[in-house]
Amino acid sequence: MFEKVLIANRGEIALRIHRACREMGIHTVAVHSTADANAMHVRLADESVCIGPPPSKDSYLNLPAILTAATITGAEAIHPGVGFLSENADFATMVADHGMTFIGPDPHHLRIMGDKVAAKTTMQELGVPVVPGSDGEVTSDSEAFRIADNIGYPVLVKAAAGGGGRGMKVAQTREEMGTALQMARNEARNAFGHDAVYLEKFLGHPRHIEVQILADRYGNVVHLGERDCSLQRRHQKLVEEGPSPALNAEQRAWIGNVAADAARRMGYEGAGTFEFLYEDGEFFFIEMNTRLQVEHPVSEAITGVDIVREQIRVAAGHALSFSQDDVHINGHAIECRINAEDPRTFAPSPGLVKDYHAPGGPAVRVDSAMYGGYRIPPHYDSLIAKLIVHGQTRNEALMRLRRALEEYVIEGVSTTIPLHRAVIQEPDFIDGAYDIHWLQRYVDKQSS
Amino acid sequence: MFEKVLIANRGEIALRIHRACREMGIHTVAVHSTADANAMHVRLADESVCIGPPPSKDSYLNLPAILTAATITGAEAIHPGVGFLSENADFATMVADHGMTFIGPDPHHLRIMGDKVAAKTTMQELGVPVVPGSDGEVTSDSEAFRIADNIGYPVLVKAAAGGGGRGMKVAQTREEMGTALQMARNEARNAFGHDAVYLEKFLGHPRHIEVQILADRYGNVVHLGERDCSLQRRHQKLVEEGPSPALNAEQRAWIGNVAADAARRMGYEGAGTFEFLYEDGEFFFIEMNTRLQVEHPVSEAITGVDIVREQIRVAAGHALSFSQDDVHINGHAIECRINAEDPRTFAPSPGLVKDYHAPGGPAVRVDSAMYGGYRIPPHYDSLIAKLIVHGQTRNEALMRLRRALEEYVIEGVSTTIPLHRAVIQEPDFIDGAYDIHWLQRYVDKQSS
Repeated sequence: MFEKVLIANRGEIALRIHRACREMGIHTVAVHSTADANAMHVRLADESVCIGPPPSKDSYLNLPAILTAATITGAEAIHPGVGFLSENADFATMVADHGMTFIGPDPHHLRIMGDKVAAKTTMQELGVPVVPGSDGEVTSDSEAFRIADNIGYPVLVKAAAGGGGRGMKVAQTREEMGTALQMARNEARNAFGHDAVYLEKFLGHPRHIEVQILADRYGNVVHLGERDCSLQRRHQKLVEEGPSPALNAEQRAWIGNVAADAARRMGYEGAGTFEFLYEDGEFFFIEMNTRLQVEHPVSEAITGVDIVREQIRVAAGHALSFSQDDVHINGHAIECRINAEDPRTFAPSPGLVKDYHAPGGPAVRVDSAMYGGYRIPPHYDSLIAKLIVHGQTRNEALMRLRRALEEYVIEGVSTTIPLHRAVIQEPDFIDGAYDIHWLQRYVDKQSS
Repeated sequence: MFEKVLIANRGEIALRIHRACREMGIHTVAVHSTADANAMHVRLADESVCIGPPPSKDSYLNLPAILTAATITGAEAIHPGVGFLSENADFATMVADHGMTFIGPDPHHLRIMGDKVAAKTTMQELGVPVVPGSDGEVTSDSEAFRIADNIGYPVLVKAAAGGGGRGMKVAQTREEMGTALQMARNEARNAFGHDAVYLEKFLGHPRHIEVQILADRYGNVVHLGERDCSLQRRHQKLVEEGPSPALNAEQRAWIGNVAADAARRMGYEGAGTFEFLYEDGEFFFIEMNTRLQVEHPVSEAITGVDIVREQIRVAAGHALSFSQDDVHINGHAIECRINAEDPRTFAPSPGLVKDYHAPGGPAVRVDSAMYGGYRIPPHYDSLIAKLIVHGQTRNEALMRLRRALEEYVIEGVSTTIPLHRAVIQEPDFIDGAYDIHWLQRYVDKQSS
């Protein structure tokens, strides 16, 4: 096993990785910007190295500085955490070139899954369901009708050169198809100068459901069930839970095995997440995250598996410490992301944390680098804490979440805690009846 | 269900009860002394009432003040917590006389189990194993020999009027019995004026093992397995774990059923703990705690049961929400009691908590009313926090505990954290090879 690991990240995720390392008896090296000199991940690490000033490109994304820090401290491996360099294939390659271990998948897999088109093609080849549609542009109306009939209505007509919703039309039925094609082409011609379009099955009310997998280099792959991350605002997840209230045991096992099989056949190594849209009983692959995810504690709570520890183990060449048969989904977990933001405008709210009291008691987990007297710097992501609750049932987890949010005190900065307190009282949330558009609609309604 | 519960306690246990209430949607009333006006249990409660100044006899033990607070706030029930009034049968009776519910057992059971002789007799009648010995004083040497032969050597000869170890002699073998009797009688005569002695089986290296039970008024009783609380200093538990490293599954089931059966036959209601000494495969009843215990989170961690919620439910006349078949012991849990004490002299260390950072991350629970800027008053018990870790195995729990203790920051006062950090590195502790004398021997060795 490694004796020393450098953690190339900051905030709660750096602390999370530090914790896994310390439980394994591994020494940690923190790197930090000048703005993070007093951060908790720096205070707790065995060693720390300043790697530059903010913004991140001069420090947390400063490849030479991080590699130098690893070299001078004698770290044998680098854990990139979440964001920053975690999906950077060039960085992973450079780490290996310096004779150290990148705790994450092979650069090859980082590269393929980083290219959304290549990722979709790869998954299709591996038998993973993707959103049905045309293979690229449609050349004629007759071809468009044939394909649309095949994938079934409603169908989305999208400008090949599109973006920002322009040149995008929905045909709810075959009757609307002719008009939709014409309007999409017109808009595309006006907006982008050429009128090529392609087709995709239109999902009106999908959920975001993702499967956590872990794989070692010996072909062992397990999945840890799914997380439902449908509560999003502008593609930012705000609340995640597992198991999904929308799936039954059969669907759960099926999509878990689909993901695990695909990872096995890819020769994937490390932690990874297969993200799907889910609607009316069907799954559609969107992308694969080739790294740890912010919401990984949801899966840890319901399986008892330490995902970061397994990541480190397999990176060090060990086999996974358990098999699929050992994985039992126990109860229900919900995570709330606490951001230092105005809960109405979502404007960042950095500054001094004057008073801090995190919830405790049974089955409550807080991952945070906050402390009373900490000054949240303005340069980084606004995520300052994750609150994860577990219950034997979803209802118990909900009661616990309500109580934990009630007692969470963060004074001096605005946070999303009031939004969370409100959302979890909504009948739709209590019933698990939400899709990826629910939160945006809710927020819009509140501010109107 | 109750709409409002008064919590007749302070510190972490008041917070614990508040949490259970809030998860059930119950409003809470905190009572507090003038010294506790800024305490966390007061800050979080829905209402609070000052019931007097320190010391406790003028506030937390002030029956009329507490009953008045309950009456004026319209509380329907009083949870006494741990210590203070929790085993006071008179208080329980008065609560009922005021038309409110005492969240705890019947006063009759508080009274019987509060009398150590009556408790032992009751348990003996219920088939619970007790320490074998003479039934009261032995009248002659020949009777003493006969009884000693019967219970087996080593035998403890104790002055009936004894105390403080005086008039207490161990006969390791039959050969030593005559001398032991004579010496004990001589000492007893000199110390107490009369020389009556009685006999008990001598346990040289017992463990303290206790069984948590829960019972409702409909005859349903469950046990939640055992806790091993052998790490004690001057009868104060410092570390507790469950399951006990000393028991196998058969012993666990057996003693669990013995306790549950006894509770059922007593007609007991509420939460309770049967405490045993355990040596060489045998259990010996010591006492029953007719209340919540400080170490209850150990059982919560390995069963997923919220013991306080069940206490409140059964007090409100509900049946237990689960049966023995639903109880599955999952993994291993360890609790460390963090006291504001000098870790060498054990002298109390009240004062200002200048900096506070509680550990977080996977499977770590902290029950504490601490916060940065809190001033620990000098008037109360020194327990300021409980750190509970869970793991799929005892080894995982140990790794997690080591890590969590490492990152626990309480600055401004001395705490027992350094002692915990040292104890859990001891090979005997890692091996689970300790008895109730181990910690005292360890502490004596360190200070010599």
